[in-house]
Amino acid sequence: MKAEIIAVGSEMLTPDNLDTNSLFITAELNEAGFQVHFKTVVGDREKDIAEVLGTAIRRSTAVIVTGGLGPTEDDLTRSAVASVLRRPLHTDPFLVEMLRNRFQSRGWNMPAINLRQAEVIDGAEVLENPNGSAPGMWIEVGKAVVVLLPGPPRELKPMLESQVIPRMRRIAGGRRLVSRTMHIAGMTESEVDSRAAPIYGRYPNIETTILAGTGLISLRLLRWLEPGERAGDLEELANSLEACLGEALFSNRGESIEEVVGRMLLQSGQSLAVAESCTSGLLAGRITRVPGSSAYFLGGALCYSDEVKMSLCGVPREVLAAHGAVSSQVAEALAQGIRSRLGASVGLSVTGIAGPGGGSEEKPVGLVYMGLADETRLVHVRRMFAGDRDGVRDRSAFFALASLRTFLRR
Amino acid sequence: MKAEIIAVGSEMLTPDNLDTNSLFITAELNEAGFQVHFKTVVGDREKDIAEVLGTAIRRSTAVIVTGGLGPTEDDLTRSAVASVLRRPLHTDPFLVEMLRNRFQSRGWNMPAINLRQAEVIDGAEVLENPNGSAPGMWIEVGKAVVVLLPGPPRELKPMLESQVIPRMRRIAGGRRLVSRTMHIAGMTESEVDSRAAPIYGRYPNIETTILAGTGLISLRLLRWLEPGERAGDLEELANSLEACLGEALFSNRGESIEEVVGRMLLQSGQSLAVAESCTSGLLAGRITRVPGSSAYFLGGALCYSDEVKMSLCGVPREVLAAHGAVSSQVAEALAQGIRSRLGASVGLSVTGIAGPGGGSEEKPVGLVYMGLADETRLVHVRRMFAGDRDGVRDRSAFFALASLRTFLRR
Repeated sequence: MKAEIIAVGSEMLTPDNLDTNSLFITAELNEAGFQVHFKTVVGDREKDIAEVLGTAIRRSTAVIVTGGLGPTEDDLTRSAVASVLRRPLHTDPFLVEMLRNRFQSRGWNMPAINLRQAEVIDGAEVLENPNGSAPGMWIEVGKAVVVLLPGPPRELKPMLESQVIPRMRRIAGGRRLVSRTMHIAGMTESEVDSRAAPIYGRYPNIETTILAGTGLISLRLLRWLEPGERAGDLEELANSLEACLGEALFSNRGESIEEVVGRMLLQSGQSLAVAESCTSGLLAGRITRVPGSSAYFLGGALCYSDEVKMSLCGVPREVLAAHGAVSSQVAEALAQGIRSRLGASVGLSVTGIAGPGGGSEEKPVGLVYMGLADETRLVHVRRMFAGDRDGVRDRSAFFALASLRTFLRR
Repeated sequence: MKAEIIAVGSEMLTPDNLDTNSLFITAELNEAGFQVHFKTVVGDREKDIAEVLGTAIRRSTAVIVTGGLGPTEDDLTRSAVASVLRRPLHTDPFLVEMLRNRFQSRGWNMPAINLRQAEVIDGAEVLENPNGSAPGMWIEVGKAVVVLLPGPPRELKPMLESQVIPRMRRIAGGRRLVSRTMHIAGMTESEVDSRAAPIYGRYPNIETTILAGTGLISLRLLRWLEPGERAGDLEELANSLEACLGEALFSNRGESIEEVVGRMLLQSGQSLAVAESCTSGLLAGRITRVPGSSAYFLGGALCYSDEVKMSLCGVPREVLAAHGAVSSQVAEALAQGIRSRLGASVGLSVTGIAGPGGGSEEKPVGLVYMGLADETRLVHVRRMFAGDRDGVRDRSAFFALASLRTFLRR
């Protein structure tokens, strides 16, 4: 059950744009029993689209093509697919009617150009698009299937979920791919591998991949199941890995560190306040990405300057003068200060040197302190992060959340 | 001068990882005179890599392959390329020496497995890797060139810039692609196009693309130059577009809104403080992504809860009680409050309903107010944003910066 994804659009061949649709398409395909073995981006050129599609049909059971279904001259997916399959396009009167109604309901006349969107490849099933004017198509070609979907995620996602995936499941005939993602903090990739390899090596039917992210290491377990088969060994492997990785494993279901910490705060009825210097918003931005975070996150201070560390977080001027803004003392004072100012259960702070400027021999770029305070404890953590400005800031935000998790467990 | 990029790595065929290297590779290739016409992602399978590479060599002048050059059994790029080109691999004694030294300088013995990284395809030029153990290769195949580079950006980038691009320029023989990116805020895609199309339509040698981003619209102008030719018409078109787009154009050189606003603050000697409710860090995170932002950004408050709007930003309890947290009155009080607390020249605030919960008929999800205050002015802007939680938050952060730009221009 091999699938491949073709994204059509010249904008994705510029330095500014990536094909991000393929991520959730891959997730859906995997659940339906298909593994993605190629992804291609091609520009708005009929010859190129036809070439890529021709190759794909020869080697894959399912080919998902996104984009190029709009009404303009740049939208060439329909004609390219028709030419590769050597099937004519016809105008579907039902689609013409639907398009006209769509425009009329908005009080507009349909421009003649939109009639192109009513063109259907002979033998294709039309996939309705409730959120846009470009219908999709499901085209069976021998044992393979070619699926055409519009590019905008708002249109693509619901069509994929409700119309394409159910058909794909039927093709897979009950075969499916199950997966588990486990996230680990505070270990290197090789530490994780040296602990995990002797265990996952005993499960040849499970494909195990180790990925290094920003601050975290992820283990991804993949298992193909035949119709009716259960994933007992996947559970078993996941449990063994959990036991051997211990406290460093912060999620065994792919949850992010901010989701894990959020749940811990919610369950213990505690609230959180933050004081961010070098991360300046990245940490709070991650915390509040979780829906419902207002139940435990009170807010905090963006204390980029020394003045703000004093005025909003109550750091004593003498502490700043004696130790400098990037110091364990200031990290602790920030955590304690913001906790008490906001009346939170827990205070969390980050102060460091993200670069490119501002480093010294004693305090180089990448040096970061995190402070943690609750009613009875006041601690700090010191770390040196490699990487550029964005890298240091991202790692600091992740590590602050990982430190908070450890703090909450004690 | 057609190029294509092949990214090797099974992790990029999962729902979690994209090939992001291709963005800066594309930028560098364009400047060197090459247009990217295909991008492919392929897994760690020798047969698949060989198939994709075989196709690429037949249709492209330059093929850039990233990844799969590590020392493990999963690293199959070397052998796949050798098999496609029908050239043997040999062990390069000079590379063996370099690898040994690299390990020795760290006090380690080189594992035997790393000898694979000293294998070179016959006829290839070795590209040195100062930041890792995987050397690259430059392989001329008839009129085409195949370039192998390691996957990690820290290793890939310097090799590309210092060793690959100069060679590519020589192949292009002085031909090059020049581009201009213009960013526009506060207009729809069709408004921009209806103004711009009559103008760029007069320049058939310049490829003009319109892209819709989060809040902004971008115009990208591309012009191929023959050796010795100058881009006079590109400048002319850019100037005409600038005139017709007026104040809505915030950058004619691809700068981000936070860079533009940062420069305005710096040049006018003003400082900035922010109060973020629904964006909660996203706005400050963008502002401080700009190196040197500490020269004008003082900090601010993450005022997620009403209590914090009062305690850190001095919003009067009565204003909150009378109008609710998401209101023009609270937006203005936040901007004014944070400005005076932090002693900043300008205060900027965002308060809104990002969803998924919290909306009502009167104040639906997507309703956002921005407040702006300086010594003499206090204003607000109201907007309704479509999209999910992340979308509303991203648009709010962008729009707050765009509003600040307008405010600073007055």
